[in-house]
Amino acid sequence: MSITDSLNPVSVLSKANVYFDGRCVSHNVTFADGIRKSVGVILPSTLVFNTGAPEIMETVAGACSVKLAGSSEWKTYGPGERFEVPGQTSFEIKVEGEPYHYICHFG
Amino acid sequence: MSITDSLNPVSVLSKANVYFDGRCVSHNVTFADGIRKSVGVILPSTLVFNTGAPEIMETVAGACSVKLAGSSEWKTYGPGERFEVPGQTSFEIKVEGEPYHYICHFG
Repeated sequence: MSITDSLNPVSVLSKANVYFDGRCVSHNVTFADGIRKSVGVILPSTLVFNTGAPEIMETVAGACSVKLAGSSEWKTYGPGERFEVPGQTSFEIKVEGEPYHYICHFG
Repeated sequence: MSITDSLNPVSVLSKANVYFDGRCVSHNVTFADGIRKSVGVILPSTLVFNTGAPEIMETVAGACSVKLAGSSEWKTYGPGERFEVPGQTSFEIKVEGEPYHYICHFG
């Protein structure tokens, strides 16, 4: 599957978002038309994220397993693969071994 | 001192640089004229970095103490403050308490 290697042209915020004591670090980017995305890394861990807006998570490198709220099924995503998370919910994400690199596209 | 809140317009690489088991995470950005910088975070730790090109480190948020190779003096830098590191050398950087957010300008 294709991977979005870079985001261009964008404005990138200098200050990062640091979640869970640094197990997730991301930087926000904004395109000229106002569309916002973030690029980030999750270190090996199992974390629960709450969504505001719907999100599409694109795997840039590494892999993760994901379980959406209300589901009992873990699904695994590798480079180029995406998963969608509805707004106003949560998901559990498990990263093992290598860091998980992602782009978060807001829906 | 003034802080560079955002870098614009740039191309940002989707895949991060992950150093020291994630205690430092950065993303590379490139301007249209080819100038490269990176935006990153160092979590509380004491790390030694080797430089290739000369670097100017700009503090975006948080603070760090730095000791250049060959020096016995630690200097502390807060938001908006910068320190320069020559090429082909190393520096020790200590971050305590809160994450240190920076822009690395290559000299």
